[in-house]
Amino acid sequence: MAIYNNQQSQNPLFQKVEQVRRRQGKIRDTYINLAHGSGGKAMRDLINDVFVKNFDNPILSQLEDQASFDLASLSQHGDRLAFTTDSYVVDPLFFPGSDIGELAINGTINDLAVSGAKPLYLSCSVILEEGLPVETLRRVVSSMQKAAQKAGIQIVTGDTKVVHRGCADKLFINTAGIGIIPANIDISPRNIQTGDVVVINGEIGNHGTAILIARGELELETNIESDCQSLHELVAEIIKTCPQIHAMRDATRGGLATVLNEFAVTANVGIRIHENAIPVKEQVNGVCEILGLDPLYLANEGKLVIVAPKEKAELILSTMKNYPTGKQASIIGEIIPTPPGIVLLKTAFGAERIVDMLVGDQLPRIC
Amino acid sequence: MAIYNNQQSQNPLFQKVEQVRRRQGKIRDTYINLAHGSGGKAMRDLINDVFVKNFDNPILSQLEDQASFDLASLSQHGDRLAFTTDSYVVDPLFFPGSDIGELAINGTINDLAVSGAKPLYLSCSVILEEGLPVETLRRVVSSMQKAAQKAGIQIVTGDTKVVHRGCADKLFINTAGIGIIPANIDISPRNIQTGDVVVINGEIGNHGTAILIARGELELETNIESDCQSLHELVAEIIKTCPQIHAMRDATRGGLATVLNEFAVTANVGIRIHENAIPVKEQVNGVCEILGLDPLYLANEGKLVIVAPKEKAELILSTMKNYPTGKQASIIGEIIPTPPGIVLLKTAFGAERIVDMLVGDQLPRIC
Repeated sequence: MAIYNNQQSQNPLFQKVEQVRRRQGKIRDTYINLAHGSGGKAMRDLINDVFVKNFDNPILSQLEDQASFDLASLSQHGDRLAFTTDSYVVDPLFFPGSDIGELAINGTINDLAVSGAKPLYLSCSVILEEGLPVETLRRVVSSMQKAAQKAGIQIVTGDTKVVHRGCADKLFINTAGIGIIPANIDISPRNIQTGDVVVINGEIGNHGTAILIARGELELETNIESDCQSLHELVAEIIKTCPQIHAMRDATRGGLATVLNEFAVTANVGIRIHENAIPVKEQVNGVCEILGLDPLYLANEGKLVIVAPKEKAELILSTMKNYPTGKQASIIGEIIPTPPGIVLLKTAFGAERIVDMLVGDQLPRIC
Repeated sequence: MAIYNNQQSQNPLFQKVEQVRRRQGKIRDTYINLAHGSGGKAMRDLINDVFVKNFDNPILSQLEDQASFDLASLSQHGDRLAFTTDSYVVDPLFFPGSDIGELAINGTINDLAVSGAKPLYLSCSVILEEGLPVETLRRVVSSMQKAAQKAGIQIVTGDTKVVHRGCADKLFINTAGIGIIPANIDISPRNIQTGDVVVINGEIGNHGTAILIARGELELETNIESDCQSLHELVAEIIKTCPQIHAMRDATRGGLATVLNEFAVTANVGIRIHENAIPVKEQVNGVCEILGLDPLYLANEGKLVIVAPKEKAELILSTMKNYPTGKQASIIGEIIPTPPGIVLLKTAFGAERIVDMLVGDQLPRIC
């Protein structure tokens, strides 16, 4: 005997199920609980109400286990696919100038951009701690969407996990990204030549300092904001005007010093940078002096380090200065044949010192 | 005055730096500390010694911020790119039949496979808790590599974050994946038709039960192992012999019941499944009876649910049975016009009951 019949609309069972179906897609909880990671109804509602509604695009809305795109539509942008991933655990979630949501979008966009790629699609996977206020998650997600919209990319697939209280710190985000690299672009530290110059698009250390201050562990008052910004438009303009650039990387964890050391080791060349030429906010220098930190190692989230042929230096500089993200661009150093694999800093006083890779960690959970 | 000269090899400074450089690429710590997430030397060594050495492939070894591939080489496999992501927080890290590392590879491979895609490249992003034994990380990473090798995919890009003790639970992994969907393949619940049959490739509930037992919270002794396995080869064979399948999904969190409800709601049809036809281990049924759980909602990590035209049922069944991952395949139900959006179970006693979406969470941190 079947429990349904022609008068099934009268069947109380179905009426109940229908009621629940109608309620779907709305989350009414104030705090995240384990059911939001169960794969069942509560998770569906969270995904629909918080993620799908915000990221609103036809690919994500299909709620398949994967997003898919025509290769033909991708190949119009170039001939190579770029693929990257980053997890974000920054503490606190919100800090002067930005938050973990914007960071999770711009950080991954920039990892694509430094290959010369045009970023197109991002994934968004979150690990939530039981008890997280849903309102906090909404703020972060809407900040992700603002950043994605500003950058012209779409968040097309995702995942949600929930762990017990105390098994994670509020909220972690992973974003993976894919983009397309235009034809005939080959940017790699291996291309670095003696005589090349080193160019940066602006002040270093702002992000690291903003996080440090935001933690409120020190009695410091500043108005320093994170430099969190997407760099792909600036990069696109630079490789259009100067496709001959040799190496490009964004200086995040480990700061400018780490990127330069990576360049020096990979290309087996020496790099000399000039303290006077490196843009640093006076307040950042002040905080560093008080705490015994070095701005060269402080994290950034919107700083592009480029190595290019000397004769292209001015062109790159002027291109950068035409962009809000490159207003304070500066030529900060040059590639020298020796000592190989070593970065030297010419101090304001004319002395020279080695700038080694970061040893230890001067500031955890910066991104 | 420069601190280097023609006798620079005699310069003690450079000799020291050289020593450090030579030491690079080896991690000598026993436990993960915050420096391993700093972006500096310690992180480089961890990445080289644990990840790059294990995942060993030319793309990852370049240690760029992104991996890249020729679109031309991708298009030989099909005409659509599939892109997915999943974070893995399973507790415990190691359990009968599998571990978080193998799970992180197979889970993401399967999310690609159910679109019909051939999985090609994965990313690997880890969040490590300060104090995690490096040996534990090595075990997990080598298990990831074994699974990747077995599946014929490469791990080409990654990220490492470390959080303070107590801010994460040992180890979380995110893998994102890209694959290529062959031409003329369109698999989606929207294609489901009344009269179609529902086929599954084997026993349900083994993964969920294995995790439950592994937590040791109950005094139960069983030899049930997780069904964690990659399904892309089985899928490839199925779409080759029967490209007309309508819908396909792997039943993970939320179990078989959740997948069927998603199908029923998306296609606005009814689904009737037959309790007698669903393969379930006697031990799994036993555990469920003791704990008041329902195997239909237990997680799986290697179960494929397919909806296809009735006339193709036997072909799909025989194709599955030819594969180790499909030995216990079974036709478990059919698509009915009404009640729309609802899944019905015909019990062993001939009665019928509604199988609704999972409400609440019967078992957290299952994947």
